[in-house]
Amino acid sequence: MNINELLPRLRAGDKRALARSITVVETGGPPARELLAATYPYAGAAHVVGITGPPGAGKSTLVTALAQEWRRRGVTVGIVAVDPTSPFTGGAVLGDRIRMQVLGGDPGVFIRSMASRGRLGGLARATADAVVLLDAAGFQVVLIETVGAGQGEVDIARAAHTTIVVEVPGMGDDVQSIKAGMLEIADVFVVNKADRDGADNVVRQLKAMLHLGEHRPGSWEPSVLKAVAMHGEGSAEIVEAASHHVAHLRNSGQAAKRARAAAERELGAAVQELALERLRGGAWDDLVARIAARERDPYGAAQELLEELRARG
Amino acid sequence: MNINELLPRLRAGDKRALARSITVVETGGPPARELLAATYPYAGAAHVVGITGPPGAGKSTLVTALAQEWRRRGVTVGIVAVDPTSPFTGGAVLGDRIRMQVLGGDPGVFIRSMASRGRLGGLARATADAVVLLDAAGFQVVLIETVGAGQGEVDIARAAHTTIVVEVPGMGDDVQSIKAGMLEIADVFVVNKADRDGADNVVRQLKAMLHLGEHRPGSWEPSVLKAVAMHGEGSAEIVEAASHHVAHLRNSGQAAKRARAAAERELGAAVQELALERLRGGAWDDLVARIAARERDPYGAAQELLEELRARG
Repeated sequence: MNINELLPRLRAGDKRALARSITVVETGGPPARELLAATYPYAGAAHVVGITGPPGAGKSTLVTALAQEWRRRGVTVGIVAVDPTSPFTGGAVLGDRIRMQVLGGDPGVFIRSMASRGRLGGLARATADAVVLLDAAGFQVVLIETVGAGQGEVDIARAAHTTIVVEVPGMGDDVQSIKAGMLEIADVFVVNKADRDGADNVVRQLKAMLHLGEHRPGSWEPSVLKAVAMHGEGSAEIVEAASHHVAHLRNSGQAAKRARAAAERELGAAVQELALERLRGGAWDDLVARIAARERDPYGAAQELLEELRARG
Repeated sequence: MNINELLPRLRAGDKRALARSITVVETGGPPARELLAATYPYAGAAHVVGITGPPGAGKSTLVTALAQEWRRRGVTVGIVAVDPTSPFTGGAVLGDRIRMQVLGGDPGVFIRSMASRGRLGGLARATADAVVLLDAAGFQVVLIETVGAGQGEVDIARAAHTTIVVEVPGMGDDVQSIKAGMLEIADVFVVNKADRDGADNVVRQLKAMLHLGEHRPGSWEPSVLKAVAMHGEGSAEIVEAASHHVAHLRNSGQAAKRARAAAERELGAAVQELALERLRGGAWDDLVARIAARERDPYGAAQELLEELRARG
């Protein structure tokens, strides 16, 4: 199926065309770029919601519960489950995804696990592209589920309008578990498994940490909500908080600012991808060998390659 | 202090020159590149050891214990503690670092916390550069401590020859906590806080997961070691496992392969940084605005910028 055939089917919400398109962006290269160029103008309407938190926080269950809540409200939902694991450790993740199967028969839901297939720029890049595809396919809410708290996750979360950070009681040192950059990116905190001991304590700690930060007038104050995702408890409140947040972004002018920042990141990433693709081969391999032997430094070599690119024109 | 003054002092192991140099690479830009170009030829001798694992695993304590063990053996140690948190959540991290203060008075130890200062390419880039500086300054072992299990951490770990993954008993669902890509990158597993209940269970699970993977003949089989870093228990065994691992890399020819892969990553990153720096300004802002308005797609715009770069030459 070429892109001229894929695009109208994707725009009509055809799930097979969508699945195939996401495989194209996972793989990267010229077909991915062509597809993105064609779909990009149709995207921009979806509410993109990132959901992140430590392993074991029940993110997949929460994603499932939230998708069900949005569906009850007549909203279509695309789900991208980002999975930095390899086939080697894939078993555990498969277990998570099984929880989402209750959504499987619904034509208003699309679920996709993303894995890095060695694409330049990695998973964050492929995920951002997949969100564009789901958005262009007309899904009104796009949920991105990511594990953990690393820079990769933060990059992925930046693609979202609203970021939900999930915590649970009893994960050892609570303050430690939320330290790694999560406080800054959270628009909504969810304390999941709130029927467990210690839930109120986690809520209290989160609120205390939020109050330590400066709250600028007019800026969004993150909500801290409790949920028992396994029984759907708290889903309505979370969906409402996410809607309030995106309305706040629009009304405060932040939505436009964020769109500009996102566009700049996208352009930067595209430049990197294209520049590297053009420079590989030729003098590249020789320079790599000389850098490895410490006869050259990477910046001097890069300078030389870019001069050469210019001279070639 | 300019680079001509900085370089000889850095090479002599002057800690103030080293601290200043690391600030230069954290900030990035032309001074960072100049410094790297000057120091790169002198690096390449250090054994670079990455230490990663979930928050609360006692990584800082383990790093301290390992540094003490290496010092007992007369080996000098540079430590880079990578910290993706912002000032907002800096308190918890400060607590971790306090544990390292016992190393403070030793002239054979240098400790530095790295934070992203908005440098292009982020923390992974600045960390890789800091490792080059410590290496060129003559530290025989360079330890990189990172939190978590995201792509960012994996990128940082790739700068290491030997990666130590720290786990602890009782972090909830054990299999979950080690799923995110950690198995592939670990050369040595350490089950820290091994005086707690469940340590043997974590060891058993790790070994079972390792045996699920294919073990190619001649490839390194990760060790699984127990430690109580707080009391220095297990440090000697871990230091020895790390030494065996780096010897294995050299003897198997993998060291050369890895050096080549590292050189290629460094070159790619340098190209990205330089290309973006040159393209910013001019048509850049207009293209960003048009991408944000969905009138252009990022790849088409990037193509145009690169053509322009060529034409300028």
